[in-house]
Amino acid sequence: MAFQVPRGTQDILPGQSEKWQYIEKIAREVCSAYQYKEIRTPIFEHTELFLRSVGESTDIVQKEMYTFEDRKGRSMTLRPEGTASAVRSFVENKLHASPQSPVKLYYIGPMFRYERPQAGRFRQFVQFGIEAIGSDDPAIDAEVISLAMNVYKKAGLKDLKLVINSLGDQESRTAHKEALVQHFSPRIGEFCADCQKRLGQNPLRILDCKKDREHELVHSAPSILEFLNEESSAYFEQVKGYLDAIGIPYTVDKNLVRGLDYYNHTAFEIMSNAEGFGAITTLAGGGRYSGLVKEMGGPEMSGIGFAMSLERFLAAIDAEKAELPVDTGIDCFVAYMGDRARDRSVSILNGLRESGISAERDYENKKLKGQFKAADRLKARFVAVLGDDELEREVITLKDMESGEQQEISISMLADTILSKRI
Amino acid sequence: MAFQVPRGTQDILPGQSEKWQYIEKIAREVCSAYQYKEIRTPIFEHTELFLRSVGESTDIVQKEMYTFEDRKGRSMTLRPEGTASAVRSFVENKLHASPQSPVKLYYIGPMFRYERPQAGRFRQFVQFGIEAIGSDDPAIDAEVISLAMNVYKKAGLKDLKLVINSLGDQESRTAHKEALVQHFSPRIGEFCADCQKRLGQNPLRILDCKKDREHELVHSAPSILEFLNEESSAYFEQVKGYLDAIGIPYTVDKNLVRGLDYYNHTAFEIMSNAEGFGAITTLAGGGRYSGLVKEMGGPEMSGIGFAMSLERFLAAIDAEKAELPVDTGIDCFVAYMGDRARDRSVSILNGLRESGISAERDYENKKLKGQFKAADRLKARFVAVLGDDELEREVITLKDMESGEQQEISISMLADTILSKRI
Repeated sequence: MAFQVPRGTQDILPGQSEKWQYIEKIAREVCSAYQYKEIRTPIFEHTELFLRSVGESTDIVQKEMYTFEDRKGRSMTLRPEGTASAVRSFVENKLHASPQSPVKLYYIGPMFRYERPQAGRFRQFVQFGIEAIGSDDPAIDAEVISLAMNVYKKAGLKDLKLVINSLGDQESRTAHKEALVQHFSPRIGEFCADCQKRLGQNPLRILDCKKDREHELVHSAPSILEFLNEESSAYFEQVKGYLDAIGIPYTVDKNLVRGLDYYNHTAFEIMSNAEGFGAITTLAGGGRYSGLVKEMGGPEMSGIGFAMSLERFLAAIDAEKAELPVDTGIDCFVAYMGDRARDRSVSILNGLRESGISAERDYENKKLKGQFKAADRLKARFVAVLGDDELEREVITLKDMESGEQQEISISMLADTILSKRI
Repeated sequence: MAFQVPRGTQDILPGQSEKWQYIEKIAREVCSAYQYKEIRTPIFEHTELFLRSVGESTDIVQKEMYTFEDRKGRSMTLRPEGTASAVRSFVENKLHASPQSPVKLYYIGPMFRYERPQAGRFRQFVQFGIEAIGSDDPAIDAEVISLAMNVYKKAGLKDLKLVINSLGDQESRTAHKEALVQHFSPRIGEFCADCQKRLGQNPLRILDCKKDREHELVHSAPSILEFLNEESSAYFEQVKGYLDAIGIPYTVDKNLVRGLDYYNHTAFEIMSNAEGFGAITTLAGGGRYSGLVKEMGGPEMSGIGFAMSLERFLAAIDAEKAELPVDTGIDCFVAYMGDRARDRSVSILNGLRESGISAERDYENKKLKGQFKAADRLKARFVAVLGDDELEREVITLKDMESGEQQEISISMLADTILSKRI
């Protein structure tokens, strides 16, 4: 019986997995430089967590969650995003008591949303995200944005666009909300059913609607930027000032909004401008939030973070034809002639590997010529050849596949010889 | 509202996550030396996959799976182990057509079993595992065992015990099975209900029963080793010979069995002998299998692999008090005096981080003394101090916290100076 990978999910195979390892390594290294530390939360959480944090009125909660009952009848959900779990863990483990402020966390792992599968969109996808919790300093906003940009840059991406906006504080948002209701109410009948609901619940999300994005009223809607009070305005100016100071170009987009009540002040998205990247150009999105830590049972503390899709990160690398240094060969192929040499190759191979040398041999009883072909395919830097004659004298012939030179050396010196030449 | 991590799962927090990163890095590096390549399969699979591969009569399938229906009513299950998915993917992606034989794969990721939570046992746990598919060479059996031992060794574990056994081929196992039925039948009434069922289905699993393991008939049961035919016996001798050759000590345990029909020839377990390690001493288990690839719709090919629990790996490291080199400090703390210096510190910090230097500053407007305390807590190798006076002259004072030396350097030279001194 043939089985298939579940619809909307994918296997990542050798040849591809090295690219994943590489970009994850970059993410970890950049996080280390910025002093963000990894947090790992479970793949599933109590469903209630996401109802509270992501919000009951969102598409994610209403249509896209993988929810199931465990054997005791508790409702569990495969995490659709990372912030809720990170904040839940922050509160449950009292990380706010840390002497370090803000607490800076990152996560890398699979997330799950039951969406219609399409190019660049999977039901299981991997997000790298960070959260800095416990500081209102606009320098942190710039730091978070800079970290994301730096990860992309280290992977060789050049064609990026950073878009920022401010959602202001509560007061600014209330004033803006009233203006939006006044703006849309007279002609709300021209909008989709979802938007008609949104008018009462959260008119900001009309600006974000995929169906109505081209409606003239969306384009002419009053901008949050006109409603920022003095404090919010000053905050936004500081964030922009820091971005200028660290040399990160950006565009302000007044229609960049985030639907949830928790979000305030800075919001941002990073897009790929690469040709042929496809319809979904957003690589990462993030912003500042307040109220979420308290909602989860913690103290009143604000945070800021982002999440980036690693699938789209790799797609952008492909679109820009950026070369990742992943297609490297092995250090040594051990070739043998005869049964005794084949037997002995097991321990020789093992000795090399224990020394951290990547090494391989043939397991199909190929002739020497076939073994050299296999060595070529594996891009072996060296081939060590062992025959009965060499075995007798405890030596092995080491051939440097770059220079073509070969030399006979003691078997006991093989690992050291390769290590000294490898650099 | 306070939320909690689901019962039987855990959060891995900063301070602990570095240890996870470290042992995963070792696993990846050793896999690279042995030329095993990473495969990543989805977190959930069609339930049927596990019914077929893990086996309907096992505890895993009968009691422990997280099974749910997706929104289209398809039955899905969070993977309880890694081999089924790896083999499913091997077949679906026709990896058997690879010029390399055997195909050597590894995986690292969460697995899920609904068990009673106890020390060392979680409902979500992480397994690192490998599979070598497509070779019957006993050298591969030794290689697989060696890889596992090497991973532990690189992490500093010393107190390990390797137990091996042979389950023989089909012919040997059939003969053994008949002998077991004859052995247990007369007194099967003294065994648990599960074992009474096992007598007809798979009497081998009686040897593995947690309830009846001390019954005298278990101790006196006929050993598979007495029933190995010539070929199976020769195979086992070769595996032992290779282990001897590469210097890995082992014990043969005739009661080490694996319940599934797929398993044949080599079976092994690695245990911790460390004092105070707790009741569950098995760190890793593995063995050779045949028939599984075919059952999944592929060609007739055998494989061998193991799975190791990373939770228990870390517990063994704790029990042996092995030191992991993870508690390292940051490269540079940037201290400031005054508002202008604080503003400027944002871009200085950013420049350091872009150069791969781990750097931090204070976000709580601490006085200089408090900032130095924070630098100490972060084990900063250098502290760079910026005041109005320095700012005027575009310089910064760099203090080496090891030697106590300090020097004034140009701000533009800060990253290069630290990089040159860091080594």
